Amino acid sequence: MALEIAPGKTRIGWIGTGVMGSSMCGHLLAAGYQSTVYNRSRSKSKPLVDRGAIEADSPKKVAESSDIVFTIVGFPADVREVTLGAEGTLAGSRAGSVLVDMTTSEPALAREIFEAAKAKGVDTVDAPVSGGDIGAREARLSIMIGGEKAVVERLDPLFQLMGKTIVHQGPAGAGQHTKMVNQILIATNMIGVCEALLYGYKAGLDLNQVMQSVGSGAAGSWSLNNLGPRMIAGNFEPGFFVEHFLKDMGIALAESRRMNLALPGLALAEQLYRAVAAQGLGRKGTHALLLALAQLSNVDWKKSSP
Amino acid sequence: MALEIAPGKTRIGWIGTGVMGSSMCGHLLAAGYQSTVYNRSRSKSKPLVDRGAIEADSPKKVAESSDIVFTIVGFPADVREVTLGAEGTLAGSRAGSVLVDMTTSEPALAREIFEAAKAKGVDTVDAPVSGGDIGAREARLSIMIGGEKAVVERLDPLFQLMGKTIVHQGPAGAGQHTKMVNQILIATNMIGVCEALLYGYKAGLDLNQVMQSVGSGAAGSWSLNNLGPRMIAGNFEPGFFVEHFLKDMGIALAESRRMNLALPGLALAEQLYRAVAAQGLGRKGTHALLLALAQLSNVDWKKSSP
Repeated sequence: MALEIAPGKTRIGWIGTGVMGSSMCGHLLAAGYQSTVYNRSRSKSKPLVDRGAIEADSPKKVAESSDIVFTIVGFPADVREVTLGAEGTLAGSRAGSVLVDMTTSEPALAREIFEAAKAKGVDTVDAPVSGGDIGAREARLSIMIGGEKAVVERLDPLFQLMGKTIVHQGPAGAGQHTKMVNQILIATNMIGVCEALLYGYKAGLDLNQVMQSVGSGAAGSWSLNNLGPRMIAGNFEPGFFVEHFLKDMGIALAESRRMNLALPGLALAEQLYRAVAAQGLGRKGTHALLLALAQLSNVDWKKSSP
Repeated sequence: MALEIAPGKTRIGWIGTGVMGSSMCGHLLAAGYQSTVYNRSRSKSKPLVDRGAIEADSPKKVAESSDIVFTIVGFPADVREVTLGAEGTLAGSRAGSVLVDMTTSEPALAREIFEAAKAKGVDTVDAPVSGGDIGAREARLSIMIGGEKAVVERLDPLFQLMGKTIVHQGPAGAGQHTKMVNQILIATNMIGVCEALLYGYKAGLDLNQVMQSVGSGAAGSWSLNNLGPRMIAGNFEPGFFVEHFLKDMGIALAESRRMNLALPGLALAEQLYRAVAAQGLGRKGTHALLLALAQLSNVDWKKSSP
């Protein structure tokens, strides 16, 4: 029998209190949910603890005192450890509780966790997000969900506190697959945005003026209109880290191989982003691809930003 | 001394009355401009003649009875013939008249025409457009303009009748270069849109549902939101022909070679679109790239459209 989810009734656990997780867990706290938190670097949990969250020593202990545990950590290996490890959430979960992984991770791992949890009577949902730090802060995330319908519906009041576009995409793994669709779109489009700006620069055009002509028609995209001006201004600070994007493309390529699907554009993007990382730009934003493509043709991009 | 442009004062010539040209010339006719037209296939000029346009036998004769001559034809070779050929517009132009090429054509050819015309005291402007047949019909085109400032400003009342986003990008050729920026953006993004949908399809997702999750965030683009639903529905009728897009990519690659600029994404797009044409899809819309990528991995896309 599934309990109704409500503040005062439902105990929340939260693992991973980085930039994204802190904002997201913060919304649950603000709505009155009792929350137990864990983060590998403890200092990052402090602002949430200051707001009333309880700190636990391990993911397992978080699960022991929670009805629903959210995770949003770094890499699939981290998801595996905090969920299936000896000190992981599943070890501390009792039948009827729910594990929700919001990390961008492997669809195959989401299904593995689903099966392992099922055997203990624990429900799981994969629910990666897009929208970045700003989307997390403003509770405007797109949440892409895989899992059983009844479980996903039950979690809806919590997702509503974190996101704006909340879509149940299918069974376990479908949330992760949808996030991969999202990342494939971004990866290949970013090549086009960077190459188009480089072409315009080499052709001697005024790139801000070019944006006026191409930004709102058939060539328009979120990346062009939001990251294009930053590239033109020479600002490559992250939004989203190159090294995290490389992780996502690696997952998408691995899944594509498994499905016997050739994706030449994604493969090219992944190789070009390897070059970005090789040039020491792994902690820059994804639009730093422009700098690697500029270097490829020996273009001094900085000269373009007055 | 440049004459003011106004209906009743300024005689317009129009060469190329295809889908785009007919709508665009039609707006000038509707505003009261006397227009002399020419098209290789005469039948295509008939609707404009029925509305009061005068038909001429050659581009040269159009120019002889016009103050300002617009051209929008197929390929750079056509632009060269109707402009610089023995029966071309320049041969029929007198000093003080203006030639405006709205074809998507070579920046280098635009500069060559500019110089040849200058020697006769004739002004020229390159002003390719984006926005397609609907944009032309609704006078909502983006018009990207290269040429001398005073000439471009003088033409503004005419451009205002055809377009919504009218930007002077720089000297002769700059309009064409800006259009290439536009096409590079579209070409590479289209790979991403097609690969992302193929991935989602092979992963067993409901693609219409996926669109809800990915369409409005960082992965969003005009192509995704406008052509994605057509691809999902199995509708590959043109918008914009694959064979015309191949022409544009060929121009952009040639200019990039000239500028010593390596654009691996654009090069890949051009190769994949060659495959689209090789599969007999040259007269389909640009989004037929999806079918070529589906064939590459032996995916039966039609099964995806109910």
